[in-house]
Amino acid sequence: MSKYAIGVDFGTLSGRAVLLDLKTGEIIAQSVRDYTHGVIDDALPGGKKLGQDWALQHPMDYLEVFYDAIPDIMKKSGVSKTDVIGMSVDFTACTMLPLDKRFMPLCFQERYRDEPHAYVKLWKHHAAQKQANFLNEIARGRGERFLSRYGGKISSEWLIPKIMQILDEAPEIYEQTHTFAEAADWVTFMLCGSFMRNACTAGYKALWHKREGYPAKAFFRALDPRLENLVEEKLSGEIVPTGRRAGFLTRDMAEKLGLHTNVAVAVANVDAHVSLPAAGITETGKLLMIMGTSTCDILLGDQEKTVEGMCGVVEDGVIEGFYGYESGQSCVGDHFDWFVNHCVPPDMFEAAEKAGEDIHGYLTRRASELSPGQSGLIVLDWFNGNRSVLVDADLTGLMLGMTLQTKPEEIYRALIEATAYGKRIIIEAYEKAGVPVLELYACGGISWKNRLMMQIYADVADRPIYISACDQTPALGAAMFGAVAAGKAAGGYDNIVECAKVMGKIKETYYPIPENIRVYEKLYAEYKLLHDWFGRGGNDVMKRLKKIKSEAEHA
Amino acid sequence: MSKYAIGVDFGTLSGRAVLLDLKTGEIIAQSVRDYTHGVIDDALPGGKKLGQDWALQHPMDYLEVFYDAIPDIMKKSGVSKTDVIGMSVDFTACTMLPLDKRFMPLCFQERYRDEPHAYVKLWKHHAAQKQANFLNEIARGRGERFLSRYGGKISSEWLIPKIMQILDEAPEIYEQTHTFAEAADWVTFMLCGSFMRNACTAGYKALWHKREGYPAKAFFRALDPRLENLVEEKLSGEIVPTGRRAGFLTRDMAEKLGLHTNVAVAVANVDAHVSLPAAGITETGKLLMIMGTSTCDILLGDQEKTVEGMCGVVEDGVIEGFYGYESGQSCVGDHFDWFVNHCVPPDMFEAAEKAGEDIHGYLTRRASELSPGQSGLIVLDWFNGNRSVLVDADLTGLMLGMTLQTKPEEIYRALIEATAYGKRIIIEAYEKAGVPVLELYACGGISWKNRLMMQIYADVADRPIYISACDQTPALGAAMFGAVAAGKAAGGYDNIVECAKVMGKIKETYYPIPENIRVYEKLYAEYKLLHDWFGRGGNDVMKRLKKIKSEAEHA
Repeated sequence: MSKYAIGVDFGTLSGRAVLLDLKTGEIIAQSVRDYTHGVIDDALPGGKKLGQDWALQHPMDYLEVFYDAIPDIMKKSGVSKTDVIGMSVDFTACTMLPLDKRFMPLCFQERYRDEPHAYVKLWKHHAAQKQANFLNEIARGRGERFLSRYGGKISSEWLIPKIMQILDEAPEIYEQTHTFAEAADWVTFMLCGSFMRNACTAGYKALWHKREGYPAKAFFRALDPRLENLVEEKLSGEIVPTGRRAGFLTRDMAEKLGLHTNVAVAVANVDAHVSLPAAGITETGKLLMIMGTSTCDILLGDQEKTVEGMCGVVEDGVIEGFYGYESGQSCVGDHFDWFVNHCVPPDMFEAAEKAGEDIHGYLTRRASELSPGQSGLIVLDWFNGNRSVLVDADLTGLMLGMTLQTKPEEIYRALIEATAYGKRIIIEAYEKAGVPVLELYACGGISWKNRLMMQIYADVADRPIYISACDQTPALGAAMFGAVAAGKAAGGYDNIVECAKVMGKIKETYYPIPENIRVYEKLYAEYKLLHDWFGRGGNDVMKRLKKIKSEAEHA
Repeated sequence: MSKYAIGVDFGTLSGRAVLLDLKTGEIIAQSVRDYTHGVIDDALPGGKKLGQDWALQHPMDYLEVFYDAIPDIMKKSGVSKTDVIGMSVDFTACTMLPLDKRFMPLCFQERYRDEPHAYVKLWKHHAAQKQANFLNEIARGRGERFLSRYGGKISSEWLIPKIMQILDEAPEIYEQTHTFAEAADWVTFMLCGSFMRNACTAGYKALWHKREGYPAKAFFRALDPRLENLVEEKLSGEIVPTGRRAGFLTRDMAEKLGLHTNVAVAVANVDAHVSLPAAGITETGKLLMIMGTSTCDILLGDQEKTVEGMCGVVEDGVIEGFYGYESGQSCVGDHFDWFVNHCVPPDMFEAAEKAGEDIHGYLTRRASELSPGQSGLIVLDWFNGNRSVLVDADLTGLMLGMTLQTKPEEIYRALIEATAYGKRIIIEAYEKAGVPVLELYACGGISWKNRLMMQIYADVADRPIYISACDQTPALGAAMFGAVAAGKAAGGYDNIVECAKVMGKIKETYYPIPENIRVYEKLYAEYKLLHDWFGRGGNDVMKRLKKIKSEAEHA
């Protein structure tokens, strides 16, 4: 008889629970709960207005996901609660909040309900840019080695800049905070009653290193004398590799969820990173692309190397015993949406409707009637800046080769190709640094929907691409880690590698087409030339135009 | 009492006659006649199929313009035929045809009615590209000085390549031709019975030079031994400066048109060049832009200079006593039409309709709400190659600076700005060569319709722009030359300068705005950097992409 594990994936707007059959690897029930407060970017629930670039959440919304979605999947599936043996969560990151000494959110206290800094700062809260800039300046000035593990630049989205903003703008909240937690670790604490930090968020978002620990006191003191003892004073909790058990469900939580108290709870994880074993990857050389509005890449290596423009490298950060590398492209699905919303003429929409296709499907089909190189176009995919490998938010898009005969489907194909060339730049950066990339894996909406895009990626990268059979890889991965926390004796697995062999299924494979490889070799050379010219200082016109634009807007 | 002159403007699809009041400078009647056969680019009237890039016309269509439109304006105006004292035509160029010894088109002969080479080759007949390439190769090899007068390259649209194609493909037609004529000169012959070549088309399209004559026999022999005596054998007719009288209306023609035989007929002219005096320009330093799908510039100078990338310089070619310079931009209105047809989303069309505006008007209004530099975009206006100053048909468009917030009206404005930067490149080439450009003049549809564009041109060029008050400058110019052919004693004018003082009226003037000049100075510097990098060999990616595209299409 089967045993089961639960995975809960906390996204930006909702949480999703899945129930995984540990024998078949099938997700037998799932349930989505929208956050009651969604993204709080305009005003607090009490009406207090927020500044520009703020993005908060209400921590109670996360608990509601547990309370609603887990009973729902149990009911839908009809599975007996005694057969559920493990669970865990994955979360957006860095999504952080200040906790009091009972590990309860400060915003739960009546006196802080109108204090923005008492709430959860969502990953995309960008109001700590000033602090991030200052941190980067100090780190560069001191020659901090950790910079090289993060592509040379710390993001305003990460933990330390967010804490710095709290200290700067709400010193009382900083003072009253017992510990600053990742929401992932806090909800795990709420399940099992013990507070631990998962090595994944600690490593990728909090500048922690397995061997070197957090940055030195002197660095924190240079940021602000009050931060000198930040680690001891405000970052309590043992840092634990993913896959380890954090504890078992508390009696109270087990009752609320309709589960048994012997459900093992694994330490939390980050949504992208947890997808790796869910796609069946537990070894080096296989780069997973999680493809959506942007693309996040996760790759295992067996050594710590400095790779140009990666987002981070963390030992044990993805799978214990490996170095997990992360890189990213800031503009993938967003790029196509921009095009469809702003650049596609009415006759294309009419033709799509007539053909019974959505506009992306129609454009993709028309684009797939072209052969590589036929559009005569090259695009630089920097409409949202460049994350890897240039780490430069001030770069912008470029399109070249247009004639009076250029058609929308040609531009659409060129936009797809641009993201494929951008991917190859990343692959080459890994390989140059001695981190092999032998095969590509893909998950996420686009990898299922856009066959043309996947073929182009295979052709441009000259590598096969394996498409994950699961359309909910983060939640699947979370459930898998729950099964590992439960262990083989309880009907789960002793490690994530064994588990991934059963659970990680491939839907289909795209192989490079020799004649396409040859053409894309030439086109990629052109992309690379433009990439390096405009991205590495040959002509900084993009930055100058941004400056002129900004002056024009503020004149 | 007023006297009157008639101007007939022969365009690509129709001919237009106007009746000009020589006292008031008003056009008091006009009439348009569409060509019965239009542009013959698919098959001859008898059904014979044409090859790719062919564009022919039927010469009878031109005569029908005379026979229909001239009686029509006489009737509409009620003017007495004794008060009409002069007339002339302007024409597209090089639009050429083979004539027999009676100066009649070979295609009028029954035996040649299915022979494509017996018809008129319209200016945009592009099937002589092979011959043009060969001619350029030979001319370069021999170091022919005439190349420098034409920006270093002879176009396939011009007379000698068209004649070479006839010799190559239909030697019998070449043999049977008594003279190869510009259609402009042939219709003038049909009016007055004497065959002369106007110095304008001879200079700009037939490689003729006032002091050096046609290219040498040795050059023609190098093209083909049979062409050695081309000039003496096939290019009969005196070459006469514009403004001179070719004769008077023949009795037969006067009867057909309902005019008197004492109507003086001026030598013919080219449509763009004849517009200069019609815009009131009869001196150096004033550059006239004739703005339509493309832009043609005409400028007078008092010396013959070599200007980078101009289309030609011809002594007496525009106004007797001056050197007429021509330059051009291949993609102006075409550029905006491409954008509107292929890149504007449905919501913009809906908003335009709601506002009661056409889409160009709507986009222009939205674009004019932006300040210079606010779009953050730079475009290279090479969607149809680059005529002046790079003379390179293999260049293509470039757009740079796009973000996920970029809007259609921003792109539209950037396209307009690109053509303005392109204009400034041309102006600087003239000035660098010692040919001053002090002020700009504009005529043609866009100059009346798009106020934003005219202001941007004034700002980018940092020069005032005077807009011609006449919306039919070519026909007006032709009538003016007719009045000069008649002479002052008959009620006309003794020279075109005196005539232009009365006729050339300005509708309005755009002055540069100081704060815009400053921003455009910076943006133009960016354009220039990209222009020179992609246009002068820094990165020949556009040419390589064209090659890859062509291989993809023929694979």
